[in-house]
Amino acid sequence: MEKGKIVLAFSGGLDTSICIPLLREHYGFDEIVTVAVDVGQPEEEITRATEKGRMLADNHYTIDAKEKFVADCLFPSIKANGSYEGYPMGTALARPLIAEEIVKIAQQEGASMIAHGCTGKGNDQLRFDFIFRSAGYDIIAPMREMNLTREWEICYAQEHNVPVTVAKDKPYSIDENCWSRSIEGGKLEDPAFHPPDDIYAWTVSPKDAPDTMEEIRIEFEKGIPVALNGQRLPGLALIRELNRIAGRNGVGRNDMVEDRILGLKAREIYEHPAATVLLAAHGDLERLVLTRSELAFKRIVDDKWSELAYMGLVHEPLFHALNAFIDTTQERASGTVDVGLYKGSVKVLGRSSDEALYSDDLVSFDSTTLDQNHAVGFSNYFGLQARLLKNLKKC
Amino acid sequence: MEKGKIVLAFSGGLDTSICIPLLREHYGFDEIVTVAVDVGQPEEEITRATEKGRMLADNHYTIDAKEKFVADCLFPSIKANGSYEGYPMGTALARPLIAEEIVKIAQQEGASMIAHGCTGKGNDQLRFDFIFRSAGYDIIAPMREMNLTREWEICYAQEHNVPVTVAKDKPYSIDENCWSRSIEGGKLEDPAFHPPDDIYAWTVSPKDAPDTMEEIRIEFEKGIPVALNGQRLPGLALIRELNRIAGRNGVGRNDMVEDRILGLKAREIYEHPAATVLLAAHGDLERLVLTRSELAFKRIVDDKWSELAYMGLVHEPLFHALNAFIDTTQERASGTVDVGLYKGSVKVLGRSSDEALYSDDLVSFDSTTLDQNHAVGFSNYFGLQARLLKNLKKC
Amino acid sequence: MEKGKIVLAFSGGLDTSICIPLLREHYGFDEIVTVAVDVGQPEEEITRATEKGRMLADNHYTIDAKEKFVADCLFPSIKANGSYEGYPMGTALARPLIAEEIVKIAQQEGASMIAHGCTGKGNDQLRFDFIFRSAGYDIIAPMREMNLTREWEICYAQEHNVPVTVAKDKPYSIDENCWSRSIEGGKLEDPAFHPPDDIYAWTVSPKDAPDTMEEIRIEFEKGIPVALNGQRLPGLALIRELNRIAGRNGVGRNDMVEDRILGLKAREIYEHPAATVLLAAHGDLERLVLTRSELAFKRIVDDKWSELAYMGLVHEPLFHALNAFIDTTQERASGTVDVGLYKGSVKVLGRSSDEALYSDDLVSFDSTTLDQNHAVGFSNYFGLQARLLKNLKKC
Amino acid sequence: MEKGKIVLAFSGGLDTSICIPLLREHYGFDEIVTVAVDVGQPEEEITRATEKGRMLADNHYTIDAKEKFVADCLFPSIKANGSYEGYPMGTALARPLIAEEIVKIAQQEGASMIAHGCTGKGNDQLRFDFIFRSAGYDIIAPMREMNLTREWEICYAQEHNVPVTVAKDKPYSIDENCWSRSIEGGKLEDPAFHPPDDIYAWTVSPKDAPDTMEEIRIEFEKGIPVALNGQRLPGLALIRELNRIAGRNGVGRNDMVEDRILGLKAREIYEHPAATVLLAAHGDLERLVLTRSELAFKRIVDDKWSELAYMGLVHEPLFHALNAFIDTTQERASGTVDVGLYKGSVKVLGRSSDEALYSDDLVSFDSTTLDQNHAVGFSNYFGLQARLLKNLKKC
Repeated sequence: MEKGKIVLAFSGGLDTSICIPLLREHYGFDEIVTVAVDVGQPEEEITRATEKGRMLADNHYTIDAKEKFVADCLFPSIKANGSYEGYPMGTALARPLIAEEIVKIAQQEGASMIAHGCTGKGNDQLRFDFIFRSAGYDIIAPMREMNLTREWEICYAQEHNVPVTVAKDKPYSIDENCWSRSIEGGKLEDPAFHPPDDIYAWTVSPKDAPDTMEEIRIEFEKGIPVALNGQRLPGLALIRELNRIAGRNGVGRNDMVEDRILGLKAREIYEHPAATVLLAAHGDLERLVLTRSELAFKRIVDDKWSELAYMGLVHEPLFHALNAFIDTTQERASGTVDVGLYKGSVKVLGRSSDEALYSDDLVSFDSTTLDQNHAVGFSNYFGLQARLLKNLKKC
Repeated sequence: MEKGKIVLAFSGGLDTSICIPLLREHYGFDEIVTVAVDVGQPEEEITRATEKGRMLADNHYTIDAKEKFVADCLFPSIKANGSYEGYPMGTALARPLIAEEIVKIAQQEGASMIAHGCTGKGNDQLRFDFIFRSAGYDIIAPMREMNLTREWEICYAQEHNVPVTVAKDKPYSIDENCWSRSIEGGKLEDPAFHPPDDIYAWTVSPKDAPDTMEEIRIEFEKGIPVALNGQRLPGLALIRELNRIAGRNGVGRNDMVEDRILGLKAREIYEHPAATVLLAAHGDLERLVLTRSELAFKRIVDDKWSELAYMGLVHEPLFHALNAFIDTTQERASGTVDVGLYKGSVKVLGRSSDEALYSDDLVSFDSTTLDQNHAVGFSNYFGLQARLLKNLKKC
Repeated sequence: MEKGKIVLAFSGGLDTSICIPLLREHYGFDEIVTVAVDVGQPEEEITRATEKGRMLADNHYTIDAKEKFVADCLFPSIKANGSYEGYPMGTALARPLIAEEIVKIAQQEGASMIAHGCTGKGNDQLRFDFIFRSAGYDIIAPMREMNLTREWEICYAQEHNVPVTVAKDKPYSIDENCWSRSIEGGKLEDPAFHPPDDIYAWTVSPKDAPDTMEEIRIEFEKGIPVALNGQRLPGLALIRELNRIAGRNGVGRNDMVEDRILGLKAREIYEHPAATVLLAAHGDLERLVLTRSELAFKRIVDDKWSELAYMGLVHEPLFHALNAFIDTTQERASGTVDVGLYKGSVKVLGRSSDEALYSDDLVSFDSTTLDQNHAVGFSNYFGLQARLLKNLKKC
Repeated sequence: MEKGKIVLAFSGGLDTSICIPLLREHYGFDEIVTVAVDVGQPEEEITRATEKGRMLADNHYTIDAKEKFVADCLFPSIKANGSYEGYPMGTALARPLIAEEIVKIAQQEGASMIAHGCTGKGNDQLRFDFIFRSAGYDIIAPMREMNLTREWEICYAQEHNVPVTVAKDKPYSIDENCWSRSIEGGKLEDPAFHPPDDIYAWTVSPKDAPDTMEEIRIEFEKGIPVALNGQRLPGLALIRELNRIAGRNGVGRNDMVEDRILGLKAREIYEHPAATVLLAAHGDLERLVLTRSELAFKRIVDDKWSELAYMGLVHEPLFHALNAFIDTTQERASGTVDVGLYKGSVKVLGRSSDEALYSDDLVSFDSTTLDQNHAVGFSNYFGLQARLLKNLKKC
């Protein structure tokens, strides 16, 4: 039976590398096309993926999706104050985009199926599967199906001339894109274990950060960051610059116990310097320009948005409806926020906006715009039902 | 017409002090009883209130409600992750308790009415009015009713032998209790203005904090902090000690634009060192012991709790029902959280609990407890409707 | 002092009629312009308003806003399953539109203020005030400000040649538009009182309805009803026809205790035959075409929409954002619903849609599309955390 | 290898009957214990199960759980206005209780595993699995695992002397307990198909119902129905009597497209006469006694409660917390509701309660309790932010 052509989501790591011979030998595919999607991983990772893909597969693509990632995934996430159980998502935002790029190649190449190297334990298998199945593809996931040990994998790699660049002891599992770097596994799995400093790559230790606060100014237009310190920058450049600035001030580390999609709790460590600063600034701006009703309801909307985003369910129509809600509110989310970065902490120092729902006149203690007697009237109805009930109980 | 006796909520400041002669002369009351309620204001403030009350009123009470404040207001607030639009509430939590203590004196004294010194601009008038009216009292609020200027007040005070201790330029309006210190008014009203360092009293500037991180361990039982660094402490002592520890590390400053009850936005600055640390630690512990479903729904419950608490609507029966929800979840919120404090930042370093919904076995990559094939089954149903829809659209 | 011109929201009833001489004599306005806005009140009511306005005021406008009411208020309400505490809103939807039409005349006439005849007890004063103030107008509300008795009003009317057409005993207060008729007041105020049959005007008593079920078919496009029994109809015509059909089958009566904006509970009786049928059909169609996630979250959105709509807060930006959410979901809310009407009850009999998220294949018991083993996998993760917890407790 | 003893959830139908020989022959168990749990199925069904269990299994138990079902499942469901996507749940409420009773027998009998006869398509497999796994049992589900055809099953039954009482054409799949009867399958699967009258067993066709309205009075105490027409009745008796009364008036039919747990939509028909009446009456009573804030938030709580109940996740700790919320609100849910039943429709006619949050005085149009001027004050702050925004936009 002809199995034909399969497209493989490819990172160049051990798992996806041995998938190539496995798909040929074990699964019987005739042609393996590898696709690496660049969403801001370290350059050497992309280079490694490109080289190994070209060497091992029948055809290889490296897709630069960095700008698309920023525009289609990160900007909406900023508007939605996108955070899952309290931290800014990263990996979750990239997976659907990566998968969509792979689908495009699969369609272009006329592939019959799509493969990925995820195991059956984590979130990524589900995020990938969802996009591939939405596009009508069946899925091969050798790591999930074959229950291989690391030793067997290394051995199999060597037998098939697959370069094994991985160190013997690879204590942590790391995922990176231009928004976030996650570190998990090994000793970090114990939620009580204090993470050592050497796991971080994007942020200096707060104690090694400069001794003076660095003040920055971020400008937003309709919920999107458009300028840093007065200089207009494209999204990707702004995020990268902010990663550098916040990172050198020790800002953006996060230590979490989070609920994975399948229901397991896992301890995860994150670095997301730009995300930390942008979400703090954006949230602060929203408090200046949105009404109390908008703020209160948008917290529920943002939370549901984040839940769907975490699961990678970007085609769920609820996700589109939530985005329509959010975009409407962001029409007025323009203004500037001043932020101070100092040895691991982020503080908003001041903010201003032409859209501010704020009137000097009204707030000032001496104002006479609103007669104080109006407040007496308001007060007479304030908590009326609770007061009725309290009086009812007394009789 | 006999107006009889009135009880006055008394702080000893200029406003409530001139209320005493005003209630006699302008409103015609025969007897003025002042009540100062101690919820952890600076000692000199309580002393001043006691002395002035004794001097100016017909009778004065100073009530120590600090322990009650911690047990009845702050502990529930910790369980509810009580924060309004993103910061830990303080003043809002104290007002209903203060008002209830005043009601008790009014009942004991057989007073016919209750007076307070709030203006018609802020939140406190509404919080006080609500409790007083719930108890069946009518309210006199001279500051709200008479539209007095500061100059007139000082002049009137001097004419009536009311000591005026207030400095000529009192740039900010400050409120303090053992949980929080708020600073507002003056130049701070401009949301863009960067607050100067001299407005803070509980926290050192991060740049003046020690050069090494201070690690502390907080132990919770059923959502309540019970021990600090291994030492069991009563609530008030624990909070005060933690205010000192976090304050000396520059932790607990907050700069907000918030929505007041009447609908005006106002810029407020807060210091709440212990609150900052305890809410961070408590939230982290919850992520270890509560289920994902509990966490997601409790965010909505906590938010509604905070909204009612901010408004002081503690007799709203919804508030009681939310507390019943929260208390049920907190049955399992026991464990310890390690926190690092360093130059203005708070970081959770690790956490553990006998109630942890966490199984080494399940998370570990090598685990065989759950067959990876089960995830394939799960994945086949994951996002099913969105996938159906996506397929539907294609045909 | 010149008071100039004022525009008066005019119904032609006793209250608004005596407002005309009151605004001249008591308030000192030079010129009174009356505006009656037709949103589907009984024709004789509009005629009466027109005649009395022309007779008594300096200038009168009658605005036909019926089509606008349907398009701008009722259609969005159907999409939002707009119901407040369980019944389809009517008066609440019309008030903002009426007010906006009056604002237009005020702007066109260069009026300095706007007047209405609402008392200080109900909802309408707040809905009107909100729109008028949003447009920058100050408000005169003689009925609210002057505390008049009915006897005084009748006497004053006679003295000023204002025709008093009102019967001596006007037992109920009634409000009508093409979507809804509300009856309140008098004996109905007692929530325990069983309403007599003679209060109804749009619906026959179920016992007098035909002895056979009337089957109708309603077609929706993007959430909007576009055809009835196969005949495409403009919105207003469709609603009127459906009011007749449902009304003759005794469908659409509602007896409620509802919470008014100020916090009082009131017993209200409604007739809304078309609304009852359309909301039942629309909700049923949604269950066919929306995903479970959409349905669950949209219930929260619809509820908040209805709360704002009830309050008349149509300029609250949250309202716009909710509409954006709702409109996105309604893109797929197209299809037909068959409904049976019989002696007061409405039953959906069947429904179909090209957008149905329904696959014969999947549901059928014999289907092999999804391997039953996949459900085993799903089941292994189903309720995982609750099971972990249950097991934890046992040890 | 000894497989030992297994307990089988037993209904006496074809599927669970052939499970007995299958568990012996195919799965190799030594001893089969059948358990039938009576939650109000038709008596003949329970008798059949008892007889067949005794005949075919090594040991059989019939457990009468009817009173427990009412007290532990139905009463909480009434308090929660328990309805999934708009209809009162029935089967979903019974499954966890049935499963718990089976677990008790399994523990008592020292069984090693538990078996059920559910397929891999529906909801019940997941509800059963959840309870069995929560108790630490592994599960055998022959119908899910073996993919059997109906023909094979009948043949296998005959070979093993299993009485096959089922008619050749069993057009629908039916589930009954004392709260609800569900009908699905066959032609009903098509959501557009109008269900024929002969599928109903508990309700007469509205056209055959009496020609006069039947008025009944239901009394609630703390959210629970305790008396019918003035006669106090135990829960089960009250529900049965109300099923008769409402059923003979054609009340309680429901035709739904609902979302099953796995994500498929299915058309289901229900009869639940008592449930329809009790939920209508309970909801009405709540509107009389609960505050607006309670009502609005409880809708969200009830909806989440119903979602968990539908899934059978009764051990999810969120479920307990929601119950604590609900029970607190129901402390005041006492009073009587008058209901009219007529040819398929249910109408509340009046209601009263000592806990009514309703004051004649306040609502009456002539009342002077609240000065109308207070409403002017209230109105000045009503929608303030939206008005500010509207004014901002104009400049």
